[in-house]
Amino acid sequence: MQKRPKKVKESQIEMTELVLPNDTNQLGNLMGGRLMHWLDICAAMAAGKHSSRVCVTASVDEINFLGPVKLGQVVHLYASVNRAFHTSMEVGVRVIVEDIHTGYSRHVNTGYLTFVALDETGRGVQVPEITPVTSDEKRRYEAAFTRRNARLNRRREIEANEAARLKAETGKKK
Amino acid sequence: MQKRPKKVKESQIEMTELVLPNDTNQLGNLMGGRLMHWLDICAAMAAGKHSSRVCVTASVDEINFLGPVKLGQVVHLYASVNRAFHTSMEVGVRVIVEDIHTGYSRHVNTGYLTFVALDETGRGVQVPEITPVTSDEKRRYEAAFTRRNARLNRRREIEANEAARLKAETGKKK
Amino acid sequence: MQKRPKKVKESQIEMTELVLPNDTNQLGNLMGGRLMHWLDICAAMAAGKHSSRVCVTASVDEINFLGPVKLGQVVHLYASVNRAFHTSMEVGVRVIVEDIHTGYSRHVNTGYLTFVALDETGRGVQVPEITPVTSDEKRRYEAAFTRRNARLNRRREIEANEAARLKAETGKKK
Amino acid sequence: MQKRPKKVKESQIEMTELVLPNDTNQLGNLMGGRLMHWLDICAAMAAGKHSSRVCVTASVDEINFLGPVKLGQVVHLYASVNRAFHTSMEVGVRVIVEDIHTGYSRHVNTGYLTFVALDETGRGVQVPEITPVTSDEKRRYEAAFTRRNARLNRRREIEANEAARLKAETGKKK
Amino acid sequence: MQKRPKKVKESQIEMTELVLPNDTNQLGNLMGGRLMHWLDICAAMAAGKHSSRVCVTASVDEINFLGPVKLGQVVHLYASVNRAFHTSMEVGVRVIVEDIHTGYSRHVNTGYLTFVALDETGRGVQVPEITPVTSDEKRRYEAAFTRRNARLNRRREIEANEAARLKAETGKKK
Amino acid sequence: MQKRPKKVKESQIEMTELVLPNDTNQLGNLMGGRLMHWLDICAAMAAGKHSSRVCVTASVDEINFLGPVKLGQVVHLYASVNRAFHTSMEVGVRVIVEDIHTGYSRHVNTGYLTFVALDETGRGVQVPEITPVTSDEKRRYEAAFTRRNARLNRRREIEANEAARLKAETGKKK
Repeated sequence: MQKRPKKVKESQIEMTELVLPNDTNQLGNLMGGRLMHWLDICAAMAAGKHSSRVCVTASVDEINFLGPVKLGQVVHLYASVNRAFHTSMEVGVRVIVEDIHTGYSRHVNTGYLTFVALDETGRGVQVPEITPVTSDEKRRYEAAFTRRNARLNRRREIEANEAARLKAETGKKK
Repeated sequence: MQKRPKKVKESQIEMTELVLPNDTNQLGNLMGGRLMHWLDICAAMAAGKHSSRVCVTASVDEINFLGPVKLGQVVHLYASVNRAFHTSMEVGVRVIVEDIHTGYSRHVNTGYLTFVALDETGRGVQVPEITPVTSDEKRRYEAAFTRRNARLNRRREIEANEAARLKAETGKKK
Repeated sequence: MQKRPKKVKESQIEMTELVLPNDTNQLGNLMGGRLMHWLDICAAMAAGKHSSRVCVTASVDEINFLGPVKLGQVVHLYASVNRAFHTSMEVGVRVIVEDIHTGYSRHVNTGYLTFVALDETGRGVQVPEITPVTSDEKRRYEAAFTRRNARLNRRREIEANEAARLKAETGKKK
Repeated sequence: MQKRPKKVKESQIEMTELVLPNDTNQLGNLMGGRLMHWLDICAAMAAGKHSSRVCVTASVDEINFLGPVKLGQVVHLYASVNRAFHTSMEVGVRVIVEDIHTGYSRHVNTGYLTFVALDETGRGVQVPEITPVTSDEKRRYEAAFTRRNARLNRRREIEANEAARLKAETGKKK
Repeated sequence: MQKRPKKVKESQIEMTELVLPNDTNQLGNLMGGRLMHWLDICAAMAAGKHSSRVCVTASVDEINFLGPVKLGQVVHLYASVNRAFHTSMEVGVRVIVEDIHTGYSRHVNTGYLTFVALDETGRGVQVPEITPVTSDEKRRYEAAFTRRNARLNRRREIEANEAARLKAETGKKK
Repeated sequence: MQKRPKKVKESQIEMTELVLPNDTNQLGNLMGGRLMHWLDICAAMAAGKHSSRVCVTASVDEINFLGPVKLGQVVHLYASVNRAFHTSMEVGVRVIVEDIHTGYSRHVNTGYLTFVALDETGRGVQVPEITPVTSDEKRRYEAAFTRRNARLNRRREIEANEAARLKAETGKKK
């Protein structure tokens, strides 16, 4: 049964985290891995809202860390589904860091993650389509398609390289 | 120096948490103490935004837990400062639980927490006043005053009881 | 089947926590939410001992935080059931903070939490009554009854306010 | 002062993690964000060994998650520095998942992360160059250069898009 | 300056932990390492109380795990200082596991840990002596001396073996 | 059915941990209990690899902590099964601490842990024998036998003492 298409804003999630000692490295900076963990959970919730299913991470696009995030700063993450592709969804997450003391906010990242919706037996299941409404949503909807093709091309390239590498390494390594 | 009054919406924080295995008890229900921990962090960020200071919890009003929250559900917390009192602020936090599978949301709690803003030496420091704008904000602004008086009365009563109890217990216990 | 009444001291739990970096905020102070988490677990164990059941938090009375607790200090929590009410129990938890270096201890809080005992299907189940023995236990047994009535009154008031608020807000907010 | 070039194997790190309940989602699968957190720590240690400095994450290349990792499985991560670029390093991390019960291992990912070495004041500091020795190391050394150029191109493109987006959004959003 | 001798009961610590999902392995059993972590913290607090200093673990005697501890059970740890030796102390910790549902308790372990008290510069500092009062305390006071000698003998033996091993391995391993 | 004997190196596990703020005490030193936790997990994975079963900790030999491990240092743990005894295995874990800044490594511990392999019903199950190959492996294989006998003797002695103690304490303590 085909589910009714849904709007982008039906999947919106806003998550806010305070950077605590447990999240930092020896310099008092937020660890990159911790931010990636938050990105993943935030995006998983947006994918879950869109699909009404448990969703698992299929891929994460390149992430750039633009300057350090410090102990005591506040990290805002805004996620929503950009587009759905049969059983998978691309989720965009914007990350804003706010300094409580100065009130200054800066955009530190936009991450794109792909999730797959699973049914009770752990198999991929079809998700509703996205109906973009605003011009921003339409732009992201188109860009998600472009990014998906680039992703599939890179994956094919990686798999070819990996196959070549495995072939080259066989006989050389235990 | 008196800081300019601020609006309620300047202190708004939205926090979203996915209930994971680590947050649950043996029944797979969110532990009460975990929810209290989230309430405290969410409210501390709102108080920090309002005051541009590190804020510490001074008191938490009675919290009622209306029905279990289950593994995999999503907890939304919405905090903002209701009113400021010299160095302290009352923060209200509304807690909504959403079931991803059914899309059903329910309001499970409204908590009121009081925070004190601290300067670099750890002493209380004056915070900006709140200018309520909407009728809801005005209602909460008035209610915060009533709750504060009730809190101060209860604290006086508790201290009197505690003093009496200590006096009564002296000589009876090691 | 009616279970035999039990004594207060049969439910006593003593819990001790060392304040470690993971428990503190940017100032090196114990976070309020962490202490609430400990209160909840300590009280849940006391309720569990009394009822021989898994118990879930139903409500937490107002908590006041009297002065900061610092990294490296020791937090003692003493819980016991004050009184049972059919399927629920009021648990009192006294919190003492001890400074290892000076040996100085101070009483920072007495919290009252209400728990409900659940059977295997997650439904409330009757718990044994409390037989208070000492004069302190009797005083707390009576006070628990007074607090319960105040709690039920406040809850009714909150529900009435909430209903009025929902009615007032309908049509104004999405 | 120019530091002596170092070999790839001087930076090798092997990390092994057992997937425990705290690492899993509601399906008992390792959460994607948890694996990203391990990738980041493992790569940070390799970058630290190469540079003898505290290193911070600058970027993480696209990560693909090939099939679920289950509770109780063992995750092996093997990291080493592929190439150094003045103050930054590309670290490659191979991820192998092993099932203890069947003895079956599978390669689930190869991630590329870029780190910057910092001095005591938090500024970027020059790191030793890499001298690749084996043919695999030479291949990875060349590929790291290609990936870096692609990364710089994508970043320029992203920044241009972001600037255009900000320009387009100005006046439309608060 | 010689500090006044102290009594065993001045260092007593009682710690209680509820076994939660985060503490268990794939079988729902408390992980051995988690129990060792609790033993260490409990003993460190007893050593801290006795010495009024920050104390660090110097050694842990053999620990036997007598039967599984299950999710939802309650672990009680009782620690006190058995004897002081200039800058170090032997702490004994008795571990009792209680099943809330059955009320059944069993003694699962007695661990002996040695701690060293440190001053502000991180150097060992003299601690007060122990004055045993009861016959149990006197027995433990004597046994601590015997155990200490055995420990020192074993350590000498291990160091000799280690030196022999290192000598034997030199030239064979990188 | 008798399983084929396995080699020591088939069970080798290398685990690497970065000491983060969450792992340290108030002095910025790795807590003893945290290191014990890592020892236990590392050894459990080696026992799991050897036996293809879930393994639980049966005992941990005396552990000596030779000097502090500091925030930001890297801890390497190397585990392998020394010998199998019907349903149990002795695992040896060597712990090396490395300072990233100086490149200096030091051996801080060798721990011996005993694990029991369990079948699906939680009962002990026979594990493959170990075939030692190198002279080091043979030496460890013999030493494991000696240690096991010493362990069994100490356990018998402890049980006798415990029985005597319980008899002596009965009637004296509640």
